[in-house]
Amino acid sequence: MPLVTVKAIAGRTVEQKRGLVKDITEAVVKNFNTTPDAVIVDIIEMGKEDFAKAGKLLIDS
Amino acid sequence: MPLVTVKAIAGRTVEQKRGLVKDITEAVVKNFNTTPDAVIVDIIEMGKEDFAKAGKLLIDS
Amino acid sequence: MPLVTVKAIAGRTVEQKRGLVKDITEAVVKNFNTTPDAVIVDIIEMGKEDFAKAGKLLIDS
Amino acid sequence: MPLVTVKAIAGRTVEQKRGLVKDITEAVVKNFNTTPDAVIVDIIEMGKEDFAKAGKLLIDS
Amino acid sequence: MPLVTVKAIAGRTVEQKRGLVKDITEAVVKNFNTTPDAVIVDIIEMGKEDFAKAGKLLIDS
Amino acid sequence: MPLVTVKAIAGRTVEQKRGLVKDITEAVVKNFNTTPDAVIVDIIEMGKEDFAKAGKLLIDS
Repeated sequence: MPLVTVKAIAGRTVEQKRGLVKDITEAVVKNFNTTPDAVIVDIIEMGKEDFAKAGKLLIDS
Repeated sequence: MPLVTVKAIAGRTVEQKRGLVKDITEAVVKNFNTTPDAVIVDIIEMGKEDFAKAGKLLIDS
Repeated sequence: MPLVTVKAIAGRTVEQKRGLVKDITEAVVKNFNTTPDAVIVDIIEMGKEDFAKAGKLLIDS
Repeated sequence: MPLVTVKAIAGRTVEQKRGLVKDITEAVVKNFNTTPDAVIVDIIEMGKEDFAKAGKLLIDS
Repeated sequence: MPLVTVKAIAGRTVEQKRGLVKDITEAVVKNFNTTPDAVIVDIIEMGKEDFAKAGKLLIDS
Repeated sequence: MPLVTVKAIAGRTVEQKRGLVKDITEAVVKNFNTTPDAVIVDIIEMGKEDFAKAGKLLIDS
């Protein structure tokens, strides 16, 4: 029952998300010996003002 | 100081959330020997395009 | 498909965890109109040196 | 590569977030012997109906 | 800078984890138009007494 | 009631954690207009085989 959470900057299309969850699920099934049915993936989108690297918000980089 | 996070598909009413946090808090107090005051619950709502099972987004199921 | 995560100080018995996940699942089913089968609960245990309130580790409180 | 996540009630300004990620990054660098470049901070904002203490939503407190 | 977290039952080998993070990173790069360098994956392992479906701990299923 | 979670490679001393939670709490209080009492910080330690950048586990870097 692997649970996968992906945090990413907002703005991806449904098509991109569709591809991502399909490929991540395959990656989990292949490497962790489980069935697709057991894999749950959720995506959390964030604004550029809610994400920072090296102490700097993405909107300031 | 148990911290509880609930991820669920968006669309529940305030009344539903009110009931949920009350009942979850009671469940934690009863089973984990703590006081209500110590229990924090937060709810993260997700769109159907941000949640997948078996490699399929919920909007495609 | 609500996903519930509980973070708590380590040391609860299996019996306590068994009761907690049962009661939390019932709380979700009752308030969020879903089926038990859709509810996943996971527990993350933490040491007292990994949890702080008001800037103080629990081991120092 | 410390990853820091801050959950807070929505409504802080960009200026407040800018200050927060700068100061948290410095706190991590100072105490955990790492470089600023390695520190990632993200902020998750929540509504007052999605946050509860002692079994009560913040909108009801 | 997508951040991916995988929660799974403990017991996978380093070899399995090595394969998983490689494949998940490729899945993110391919679908979300980013570079490998920007992708961070972490794995949280859980005991069977810390994971429940339908109100039942995995050790009881 | 900001909740802060820090994920970092295992191995920091209690003294380091003590300093970190103190400084992070001050950073939150200063920037987000709250009281120390409202700030909760937890630390999740990870092994080098459970953390990857650019598709590579830390133990392989």
